[in-house]
Amino acid sequence: MSSNLFDALKEACTPEWRAYVEHPFVKAIGDGSLPLASFQHYLVQDYLFLIAFARAKALAIYKSETLDEMRIANAGLDALLETEMALHVRLCAGWGIGQDVLERAPEALATVAYTRYVLDTGFKGDLLDLYVAMAPCLIGYGEIGRSLAAVPGALDPGNPYAAWIAEYAGDGYQAIAEQAKADLDRIALPRVSMARLERLTGIFRTATRLEADFWQMGLDRAD
Amino acid sequence: MSSNLFDALKEACTPEWRAYVEHPFVKAIGDGSLPLASFQHYLVQDYLFLIAFARAKALAIYKSETLDEMRIANAGLDALLETEMALHVRLCAGWGIGQDVLERAPEALATVAYTRYVLDTGFKGDLLDLYVAMAPCLIGYGEIGRSLAAVPGALDPGNPYAAWIAEYAGDGYQAIAEQAKADLDRIALPRVSMARLERLTGIFRTATRLEADFWQMGLDRAD
Amino acid sequence: MSSNLFDALKEACTPEWRAYVEHPFVKAIGDGSLPLASFQHYLVQDYLFLIAFARAKALAIYKSETLDEMRIANAGLDALLETEMALHVRLCAGWGIGQDVLERAPEALATVAYTRYVLDTGFKGDLLDLYVAMAPCLIGYGEIGRSLAAVPGALDPGNPYAAWIAEYAGDGYQAIAEQAKADLDRIALPRVSMARLERLTGIFRTATRLEADFWQMGLDRAD
Amino acid sequence: MSSNLFDALKEACTPEWRAYVEHPFVKAIGDGSLPLASFQHYLVQDYLFLIAFARAKALAIYKSETLDEMRIANAGLDALLETEMALHVRLCAGWGIGQDVLERAPEALATVAYTRYVLDTGFKGDLLDLYVAMAPCLIGYGEIGRSLAAVPGALDPGNPYAAWIAEYAGDGYQAIAEQAKADLDRIALPRVSMARLERLTGIFRTATRLEADFWQMGLDRAD
Repeated sequence: MSSNLFDALKEACTPEWRAYVEHPFVKAIGDGSLPLASFQHYLVQDYLFLIAFARAKALAIYKSETLDEMRIANAGLDALLETEMALHVRLCAGWGIGQDVLERAPEALATVAYTRYVLDTGFKGDLLDLYVAMAPCLIGYGEIGRSLAAVPGALDPGNPYAAWIAEYAGDGYQAIAEQAKADLDRIALPRVSMARLERLTGIFRTATRLEADFWQMGLDRAD
Repeated sequence: MSSNLFDALKEACTPEWRAYVEHPFVKAIGDGSLPLASFQHYLVQDYLFLIAFARAKALAIYKSETLDEMRIANAGLDALLETEMALHVRLCAGWGIGQDVLERAPEALATVAYTRYVLDTGFKGDLLDLYVAMAPCLIGYGEIGRSLAAVPGALDPGNPYAAWIAEYAGDGYQAIAEQAKADLDRIALPRVSMARLERLTGIFRTATRLEADFWQMGLDRAD
Repeated sequence: MSSNLFDALKEACTPEWRAYVEHPFVKAIGDGSLPLASFQHYLVQDYLFLIAFARAKALAIYKSETLDEMRIANAGLDALLETEMALHVRLCAGWGIGQDVLERAPEALATVAYTRYVLDTGFKGDLLDLYVAMAPCLIGYGEIGRSLAAVPGALDPGNPYAAWIAEYAGDGYQAIAEQAKADLDRIALPRVSMARLERLTGIFRTATRLEADFWQMGLDRAD
Repeated sequence: MSSNLFDALKEACTPEWRAYVEHPFVKAIGDGSLPLASFQHYLVQDYLFLIAFARAKALAIYKSETLDEMRIANAGLDALLETEMALHVRLCAGWGIGQDVLERAPEALATVAYTRYVLDTGFKGDLLDLYVAMAPCLIGYGEIGRSLAAVPGALDPGNPYAAWIAEYAGDGYQAIAEQAKADLDRIALPRVSMARLERLTGIFRTATRLEADFWQMGLDRAD
């Protein structure tokens, strides 16, 4: 068995995991063939996704059993709300997406599905269920960034998405993903049992599937 | 302005409402042209939808402020869990869908999106927000049943979906839909303000859009 | 170790459990020495308690993972809202407490504390946490009824509280309490681990302590 | 009518408000007559209260409708978890209360009651309900600090509680309380209606009553 919960979950959902991290949207970012409209649509929805993700982190603080767990959940929330949302707005501006577009955009089906699935899983279950539902996003982006950066030419100036790849492949995000893996184990330790692993795998599988649908949503808007 | 909240919300979202109640899936039920695979896929997802709907009704009981409101929310919950779920299983069997299929089917994107949107709206807001998010389904099906029943030939034995239409056009469901309209007004009375109507319209619009996506999910599986 | 979760929890909290089931309020019911004002105050607060208990049962339906678990949680909810609340109103009338008093009574500190502790525990944790927080009430009343009925003279007509004792000692309530014990094990089976037992014991201990405070609240109003 | 929601609520609950801000516990802090054991018990429970308060702030982030509202709710949360909890631990050490005592102390009835009432009110209602339930604490301490500082001798070195009074009467806390008043109005603006004011008053009244009970809990431990 894997030495940490995240790898165990990933191995238990190999087909869904590969359909997510090797999705055509991801590959098209790697070789630069992704249509601009697809990437723009993704960026707008990612803005809405980040807001929901901040709400999920807040829910994790509420659901924590100890002050230590509250601090794990709180880490990064302040930065997300006060700094990163503004950075994302500026990033979008660089891609020709104004703040008014971001604020008026309706959530796409895939955005509603994944974000609300995470929140509902959190309310229905306990803190660990919530973390498992968030893991494909938080930790998966690190894996995607790393594997894309290894694609020949992916980081070349000719790839319009090189900066995006560099961001997630960079030391900063890689450290966040590693921390998230370690946090997952800290949250899991007092809560997990063999009987429960099956249920957690179900959550992880669904969350992974919904992440793949999120990529598909980007692709579908390739006009 | 409309004499009840439901009609006011519907009028404020006319394009989304028509895209829902006049969706190609609905029209294809009316003239019997809907592929069987589409209808079967819809039935399986509707089973999963009903479970989530029961959870939403339970959430409404929790969020009620008075015993009277608790009883409004509770009405039909017992029947749903103890009787209607079994009826739905038998209905599905009649369409060649075994109980094992129902119980193992993963939720489609559109199912996750609408059901979790309703639940999250309920947790985020108050009881009225939750009711407004449920209204397109509960009350909309009554309107759809009625208008389909008026389509020439819709109830003829030659239409494989005649029984489905008759169910929602029948006195039983029409009374449920009328009651739901009246309940919405009772819940709204102590809670609504002009300033709030805009927000409620936003919830109703999104819920209606997600209902239309639910039809689309059926259509997309026409294989 | 005990053969069921309830007994295991009870054994792990023996002092708190005894302080609850052998509280002076309980003993004074058994020998009929409880001041009428204490009992009346308890009845009024128990009415408010039952409403919160219905909300907790609704929350359990929401938090269920399977249709089977939803049905376990739903059992009795309809009867509680539609029948038992009305019976409690009639019972109170018999003790000189009008419905207007019931509806206007502010919740006592002990009522707020126990009912909201149960609900918060349910939101913070998973379905099993919620059930463990409800167990001291649901199952404990069965034990209290049984042990009071065994007190010489407790069921004599001279004891003004004989009917209350007979109610909880009767076959009807004893069956409910037995079912609740069995349900707790069904909910626990896929969720419990040794690491988690300690946490569950903490919830059970606090809930038991708050139940004892609920008796104390009755006693304190002996004017 | 008052020019802001907080003053309107306070005026609608004058007896409860006075019972809270002029509680014997408060007066005994002002003239220094409060038994040390009462103050120590209060400090321990206040530590547990702060943790619950952080959870309530996190819930407010989750329940926010806009990014602006999320930021209002988030303000101070990071400081609370990362700095102020540590400061409170040091403050308690100065009064002879070790960290082990803080971490093992069971919550008093009054602590459970008020903190869980706030959280349940937040889940049951919307964001405004949650803010109204938190207001007596957040804004009330500012009023108490200011009025105690005006008591002759309250800030003299002879009063063992002079530093506590100075803390809440100081510019820092007064600014926090003023901001909380303004935030309440910003949250209320799109949500409030005359019909709703009555319900909000009920929440404010109960929360104020539970705050007074929190003082009483301190007094009762005067051994």
